[in-house]
Amino acid sequence: MKATSDIELMAGPEGDLSAFAGTTRALVDATLDRLLPAESASPTRVHAAIRWSVFAGGKRFRPLLMLAVGEAFATAPELLIRTACALELIHTYSLIHDDLPSMDDDDLRRGRATCHVRFGEATAILAGDALQSLAFQTIAGDEQLSAAPRLRLIAEVAGASGTPAGMVAGQALDLEAESRAVSASELEQIHRLKTGALIIAAARAGAIIAEATEAELAAITAYAAQLGLLFQITDDLLDVTATAETLGKTPGKDQRSEKATYPALYGVAATRKHVIAVHQNACAALEPLDRPTVRLRAIADFILQRQT
Amino acid sequence: MKATSDIELMAGPEGDLSAFAGTTRALVDATLDRLLPAESASPTRVHAAIRWSVFAGGKRFRPLLMLAVGEAFATAPELLIRTACALELIHTYSLIHDDLPSMDDDDLRRGRATCHVRFGEATAILAGDALQSLAFQTIAGDEQLSAAPRLRLIAEVAGASGTPAGMVAGQALDLEAESRAVSASELEQIHRLKTGALIIAAARAGAIIAEATEAELAAITAYAAQLGLLFQITDDLLDVTATAETLGKTPGKDQRSEKATYPALYGVAATRKHVIAVHQNACAALEPLDRPTVRLRAIADFILQRQT
Repeated sequence: MKATSDIELMAGPEGDLSAFAGTTRALVDATLDRLLPAESASPTRVHAAIRWSVFAGGKRFRPLLMLAVGEAFATAPELLIRTACALELIHTYSLIHDDLPSMDDDDLRRGRATCHVRFGEATAILAGDALQSLAFQTIAGDEQLSAAPRLRLIAEVAGASGTPAGMVAGQALDLEAESRAVSASELEQIHRLKTGALIIAAARAGAIIAEATEAELAAITAYAAQLGLLFQITDDLLDVTATAETLGKTPGKDQRSEKATYPALYGVAATRKHVIAVHQNACAALEPLDRPTVRLRAIADFILQRQT
Repeated sequence: MKATSDIELMAGPEGDLSAFAGTTRALVDATLDRLLPAESASPTRVHAAIRWSVFAGGKRFRPLLMLAVGEAFATAPELLIRTACALELIHTYSLIHDDLPSMDDDDLRRGRATCHVRFGEATAILAGDALQSLAFQTIAGDEQLSAAPRLRLIAEVAGASGTPAGMVAGQALDLEAESRAVSASELEQIHRLKTGALIIAAARAGAIIAEATEAELAAITAYAAQLGLLFQITDDLLDVTATAETLGKTPGKDQRSEKATYPALYGVAATRKHVIAVHQNACAALEPLDRPTVRLRAIADFILQRQT
């Protein structure tokens, strides 16, 4: 395990995202390991399932984004890390439930068996349920923060997770859209809720803990909204263009099951152009901030260029 | 809708639980109606599923218990009602998920189709997920309470919901136990987690909001632990002895699927004796309290005598 101090986290040139991402990942993984029940603790099967999915090689993108926002506001990672992990727990629960046979029916994620394939459907549902509880328990019990921001963070994360304005609403709309053609605005709405809301919550959580002004919070929110869109569109593109080996899941699956995607709606060439514009919007949203935003721009660059 | 003032809630002789239960139910249902997204709001299908299950004729037992504890400590229902509703949201989510085909596979609850039978499995999973988020959002945003108790309530409810010490752990142990014989202590552990933890949390939530002393909180906790056990054992007994019409679900189902139950382990006669002892323990646990506990004893009586 790498050292987790403030200084380590900020090592390397500010534009070098890979060093920052590596240190963030180590800090997140070590903290998640402490937060999660041991696999040997009863009930062992659900705890094994939880750890199987939490430590499945995820990119830790939401914690990375949150810590990068915190860094821009010169806020110590120690104040951010538990909420960052809570966001990762919510994200992991959503992946477990989305992969279920009655939902997206995915057998493979990041190159290995999904939770229900490995542990059975009942255990996978319970693992997701428990991860959601643990996420809120983690923020509520974060004694590094005073009470008011903890409550605000819980409200933000819960709102971004549920319905009508969060992840569950997006997944529900996505399922409803499977059986019919969707318009461009419906597609954007699905993505805004399904992926965007939690990414926005991650960025806002960093700014809230950093005690950002309302104007700063608005800029961070606008940036994160574009980032979420960028993330989803590049995901759609990768699904069309990447190989199974690179992707760790079956490519083209979305298209076959007629899920709403940008390439399906606009074609690959127009979608690539759109991606460039969204990246520019993300960077433009940062301009009002009188803060070092090089890392936040590097995150936008990274998503634009990502291969997996 | 009935009036929701303090005075109305306490109308009728203190031992008369039915008047208290009726007023509590009206207050809970009206508050839940305000808390839940409208069925007409997008995504409509998941919102319809949420309301289908939340307004399925549940007994509102956890809110009733919480408000009765609050009453014993002379605390206004206005301070308790949102957390009471949050507990009901958690309880409802757990019923939706427990009924799923991969879990207990129940088609009928309280005399009508379960959520997944009515709305499909994917929507039922999402409805449960959203209800959990909404529960924590509800407590976090309860401006009737100061920040410290809200955080404590969230931690209590999350702990009682998840794993290793909550409802999910109990359901996981219950599923593990289906394929083999369980001991008496294992059975008690399953029930303590699956049903007991949230019932204890409901009683403790009332005492926490009432600013009870640690000694008072300990007495309430001991009472609620016995009450949870009483609730589960009478539930097991009803499953063996009641008719489908009275019960609103298929009786004998637990036995057929070889689920761990008290009558299966001890026989009906010994279980009935055990129920009497647990009821006495519940009432005895209240003795140290220098508070009017007639309503809390009436709740124990009610569970002892319940037919459904």
